[in-house]
Amino acid sequence: MSDLSITRLNTSDEDFDRSLARLLAWDDSVDHQVNESVRHILSQVKSRGDAAILEFTEQFDRLKADSVAELEMSKDRLLKALEAIPQDQRLALEAAAQRIRDYHERQNQTSWQYEEADGTVLGQKVTPLDRAGLYVPGGKAAYPSSVLMNAIPAKVAGVSEVVMVVPTPDGLVNDMVLAAAAIAGVDRVFTIGGAQAVGALAYGTETVPAVDKIVGPGNIFVATAKREVFGTVGIDMIAGPSEILVICDGQTDPDWIAMDLFSQAEHDEQAQSILISPDKGFLDAVEASIQRLLPTMERADIIAESVGSRGALIQVADLAEAAEVSNRIAPEHLELSVEQPEALLENIRHAGAVFMGRYTAEALGDYCAGPNHVLPTSGTARFSSPLGVYDFQKRSSIIGFSANGADKMGRIASVLARGEGLTAHARSAEYRIKE
Amino acid sequence: MSDLSITRLNTSDEDFDRSLARLLAWDDSVDHQVNESVRHILSQVKSRGDAAILEFTEQFDRLKADSVAELEMSKDRLLKALEAIPQDQRLALEAAAQRIRDYHERQNQTSWQYEEADGTVLGQKVTPLDRAGLYVPGGKAAYPSSVLMNAIPAKVAGVSEVVMVVPTPDGLVNDMVLAAAAIAGVDRVFTIGGAQAVGALAYGTETVPAVDKIVGPGNIFVATAKREVFGTVGIDMIAGPSEILVICDGQTDPDWIAMDLFSQAEHDEQAQSILISPDKGFLDAVEASIQRLLPTMERADIIAESVGSRGALIQVADLAEAAEVSNRIAPEHLELSVEQPEALLENIRHAGAVFMGRYTAEALGDYCAGPNHVLPTSGTARFSSPLGVYDFQKRSSIIGFSANGADKMGRIASVLARGEGLTAHARSAEYRIKE
Repeated sequence: MSDLSITRLNTSDEDFDRSLARLLAWDDSVDHQVNESVRHILSQVKSRGDAAILEFTEQFDRLKADSVAELEMSKDRLLKALEAIPQDQRLALEAAAQRIRDYHERQNQTSWQYEEADGTVLGQKVTPLDRAGLYVPGGKAAYPSSVLMNAIPAKVAGVSEVVMVVPTPDGLVNDMVLAAAAIAGVDRVFTIGGAQAVGALAYGTETVPAVDKIVGPGNIFVATAKREVFGTVGIDMIAGPSEILVICDGQTDPDWIAMDLFSQAEHDEQAQSILISPDKGFLDAVEASIQRLLPTMERADIIAESVGSRGALIQVADLAEAAEVSNRIAPEHLELSVEQPEALLENIRHAGAVFMGRYTAEALGDYCAGPNHVLPTSGTARFSSPLGVYDFQKRSSIIGFSANGADKMGRIASVLARGEGLTAHARSAEYRIKE
Repeated sequence: MSDLSITRLNTSDEDFDRSLARLLAWDDSVDHQVNESVRHILSQVKSRGDAAILEFTEQFDRLKADSVAELEMSKDRLLKALEAIPQDQRLALEAAAQRIRDYHERQNQTSWQYEEADGTVLGQKVTPLDRAGLYVPGGKAAYPSSVLMNAIPAKVAGVSEVVMVVPTPDGLVNDMVLAAAAIAGVDRVFTIGGAQAVGALAYGTETVPAVDKIVGPGNIFVATAKREVFGTVGIDMIAGPSEILVICDGQTDPDWIAMDLFSQAEHDEQAQSILISPDKGFLDAVEASIQRLLPTMERADIIAESVGSRGALIQVADLAEAAEVSNRIAPEHLELSVEQPEALLENIRHAGAVFMGRYTAEALGDYCAGPNHVLPTSGTARFSSPLGVYDFQKRSSIIGFSANGADKMGRIASVLARGEGLTAHARSAEYRIKE
């Protein structure tokens, strides 16, 4: 295998800004053919319900059923899967679930209210969603960890019913996924997938209940369908390819860093793995590790394509500049593989998750650290957050005026409403003003 | 004026469910011609920046300028507007701003972290967005209250720069809007609007800085443009027409309730005003008030169209059933005009804002109660929240393992990663396991 060519950048290069922008560019524009196809599927599901689900499931998953009820998996089936998987996998899933639950319980929000001197009460009431839908990809990308990460926050939030959909193309079932559903407390499971499953969750059919929000990863059809039903239901982020940014002071074992970069690169060819260091010698050492370790990897082809086309080794003047570059990237995963990660963290403004110190491999966060592995990609950490309990709760403002409060506030509202030409608003407020 | 015909429903009717669904149906499907036009504008702004902004502003707002810098308003201009408006309006705006600030400060989120026995540290870091964009409609729908409601939460959240865009068609400037911008602490103001302004905020131009999130109401072109740039930047909800649902026990002055219904109806013809009561005589009385008051309203035409086409008076068996119907509607504004609003609130699961008791006119919440008036519409209160400080902050997960923690967790991650066939993940974790 000839050596992989890896992009090298240096902040001291004159065209660094443009080179970095080019490196990060990611075209998430919608494919119009996919769009048309998804719209057709959604409108069929909306108007014909179960019948459409059965047709598309036969067409796309080569799975024939007489009714959608047949495509539902019983709780017993989930428990059987839990019994069937190897004991070490079961224990690992259970340990991971416990840690994820512990962490997410700290995100629970509580209602609050306060009373003003004149008896006016203001507050915020927090309530869970009634029902959440969880999309789980089938086939090769069936990740039980993803079931835990999406379902547990919903249950911690108090969602009464979590409905999972997972395609089983050609009837292929993944027991580890079902076991994770059992552990996470998923309430119902339908073996349907694609845009048709998203439509079923958004609009409801005779058999599949409509949910209030749909979360979980999926292919381009699933992502397009989620974007399309947004508004009818809530959705989580439309995820781009996975990314990791490692900032290293040059003192971590280069093999560790190379493997950390690989752990994102192996996800898919579009994944992005970037290393930043002020130490040129260290960048060279990691590049040597990459070349040496690559042939030993099970997913060497995917990793080579990803690292070769979208990876980069970036040299900076110092760690402060590394933090600046990181803020421009707003990475999904950020490893601070440095001696004093706490000090460096002060300078980090945008990142999905930050992995502190040499021992905190990003992979630990994917599975069992506790925090969520559903994170904002493609720079969206500038304005969005990891999936969390807060995604399954919403707030209602509470406003209660005493007669005195309504009198006082009515006068202000009246002036502003008349200033805006909204006289019904003004008169509604004025009715509550004392003579 | 002949009497307005208003829809009457009764939960005891056999076809109540279907009638209610028909009443609530709201077609928010995208207009393809608008879509094409918006895409064209956005791509022009993305590729040609300022030049495109100047062309579209001349074309749509009949406003000619030589540079976008000419379209920026100085802080001095904002302060001059604040001096220019009538004193009672200024005092009302300042009082409202203070109350909005007080309420929203309670929404501020704080970072947290905890340490486990083996030294593992987990946490969540909360940071503000760097820059937020605020769209403010021009012309007749120029609402200074909307400037306060959108800008103040951003500033409370710690956003360093709030950039406001407001079209001034034919050069028409609204001083009350500019005064509100001054009071709210808006940092920069450009007199541009439409899809081109959304594009400028999303992509940035030579003169207009790119922001991280765009909030604020707008017409169909603005809403479509926001939907289109979602992902490049964050956006708030795509708002549908405004709605009010009043639950009344029959003991509130019928004129008050009629005026409360009007206060939503006057927004636009598609607005929806619904009254629910177990008291048929009261529904009759409110209907009589509606007929009597309607001819006295400045916006009688809009109100008549809105109440006639989308309004309804719904009779229920009791207040518990009223709450059930309300939960199905998930209204933007909910008035509990009853003797014991706290008791009824227990049963309310979905609502943007709840107005407690007979004195709490919804209009007070629009202006100066304190909570935000940007609220989820069209049933989206099932899964979303009022605009708040949390919309201008985001979270980063913090994960830090000690050598011991990495050893313990690495073993679990290794099992799960190998179960998913992700061996780079596994090996990255295994490097940190002790021999």
